[in-house]
Amino acid sequence: MSEAAAASRFALQVKVYYEDTDAAGVVYYANYLKYMERARTEWLASLGLPLAQFIARHGALFVVRRVHIDYHLPARLNDPLTVTVEVLARGAARLTLHQSILRGDALLTAAEVTLACVDAARLKPRRLPDVLAAALETA
Amino acid sequence: MSEAAAASRFALQVKVYYEDTDAAGVVYYANYLKYMERARTEWLASLGLPLAQFIARHGALFVVRRVHIDYHLPARLNDPLTVTVEVLARGAARLTLHQSILRGDALLTAAEVTLACVDAARLKPRRLPDVLAAALETA
Amino acid sequence: MSEAAAASRFALQVKVYYEDTDAAGVVYYANYLKYMERARTEWLASLGLPLAQFIARHGALFVVRRVHIDYHLPARLNDPLTVTVEVLARGAARLTLHQSILRGDALLTAAEVTLACVDAARLKPRRLPDVLAAALETA
Amino acid sequence: MSEAAAASRFALQVKVYYEDTDAAGVVYYANYLKYMERARTEWLASLGLPLAQFIARHGALFVVRRVHIDYHLPARLNDPLTVTVEVLARGAARLTLHQSILRGDALLTAAEVTLACVDAARLKPRRLPDVLAAALETA
Repeated sequence: MSEAAAASRFALQVKVYYEDTDAAGVVYYANYLKYMERARTEWLASLGLPLAQFIARHGALFVVRRVHIDYHLPARLNDPLTVTVEVLARGAARLTLHQSILRGDALLTAAEVTLACVDAARLKPRRLPDVLAAALETA
Repeated sequence: MSEAAAASRFALQVKVYYEDTDAAGVVYYANYLKYMERARTEWLASLGLPLAQFIARHGALFVVRRVHIDYHLPARLNDPLTVTVEVLARGAARLTLHQSILRGDALLTAAEVTLACVDAARLKPRRLPDVLAAALETA
Repeated sequence: MSEAAAASRFALQVKVYYEDTDAAGVVYYANYLKYMERARTEWLASLGLPLAQFIARHGALFVVRRVHIDYHLPARLNDPLTVTVEVLARGAARLTLHQSILRGDALLTAAEVTLACVDAARLKPRRLPDVLAAALETA
Repeated sequence: MSEAAAASRFALQVKVYYEDTDAAGVVYYANYLKYMERARTEWLASLGLPLAQFIARHGALFVVRRVHIDYHLPARLNDPLTVTVEVLARGAARLTLHQSILRGDALLTAAEVTLACVDAARLKPRRLPDVLAAALETA
């Protein structure tokens, strides 16, 4: 990965608890999506846009429109994981992100996540708030 | 249990899926509370008070104030379970329920759950809707 | 949809409870995957292959390798939903399914889910059990 | 609280994400138990007993036998919370903990949680591992 790419990639550390696992002894497949949402929330906060403010000040929130996720290797109880966020594409009212979940250098799960920005009250599509567009320019 | 008690006990059938279990191979301890809430919701519906109507027509909802739960035996993947609801006590703005989770005749989990009826908008305590009070009289 | 397709499409009814929703008032995006797994489990049982037997007798289980999911419309508290399962493709050790979630006639969510059959002990790929291959032939 | 008590009280910081909330706009009642388990796991790790080692080296794990939980005030999306762990009582094969969840100085939820130490393989009661008993002496 180039330094430029590294600079624009956000990473969150999470840990696997019992709540995340299932009877097969690994993280339940839907729960990786929880880790990914936590990382997106922290990534927005790192851009100066905490969720509460995003809703209260901009009347906007993100909804997930599409997820393409590949499960390569399972995560297990107590594993320390890294969850990443990178912007793949940005439209007027839409963001496509690449997110991965790693244990050390091992890639466990990778996803492409498409978000739509919607009006918080009516859940109708709306343009990304200017502050976010600006933050993404300089990220 | 007397016939009168049996007559007033509501029961819901649920099944254990992967999502409910954890790496110890059993249902995760918090998830029994999900089963119990499903049973309470279906019990209210059986009294003629589906949730949506409860909120839309009466502006009321229930919040859980207290749970005393004992875990006797674990439930496992694929187990068919029975989740019960019985009224232990009723106040002006409060209900105390006994709920149990059984696999056949075996008692897995038993709880006493105290609910407060609150205003849906402000989450402040309010009297039970008259229709519920009436339904509980005759249940 | 042709009658032949209808005949081979499995459907499970589920209902949205509080546990499934989030603060945006809709079903949390990861939780649709729980509904889909419940439907897959019941679909396998409908083919004569309940999970417990699948593991105990055949030493096999399915792991999810890939999910492509599109979120069209949100499900809300108390919604009755239909979750479908159809086989799109079958390999020696792999199944690709189409799954959808509907509220009445409205398509809320559609997904393509790729499963790998693995040895229950070591989680290594293995051929589909013959009984499943046979059941799929005649489904 | 005395200084001695403060010294022996473990605290974990968690944050409320969408996954934790429900359609009432607050943290779903079962999910506070997840926060409490995360805190217990980190507390054990802080005593030198990470979960993986607890199981692998001592063949032991904890199961929850009883929870008495009071819900005083709701937690909301994005809230930073503190989850505490204190030992109330210790038996040969059993621990009773007091756990609380706070937002700043506000007590949201308080619980008494009784754990039994069991053999990891057969889930039968067994004495607390000596290292834990020793760690609790000096904590």
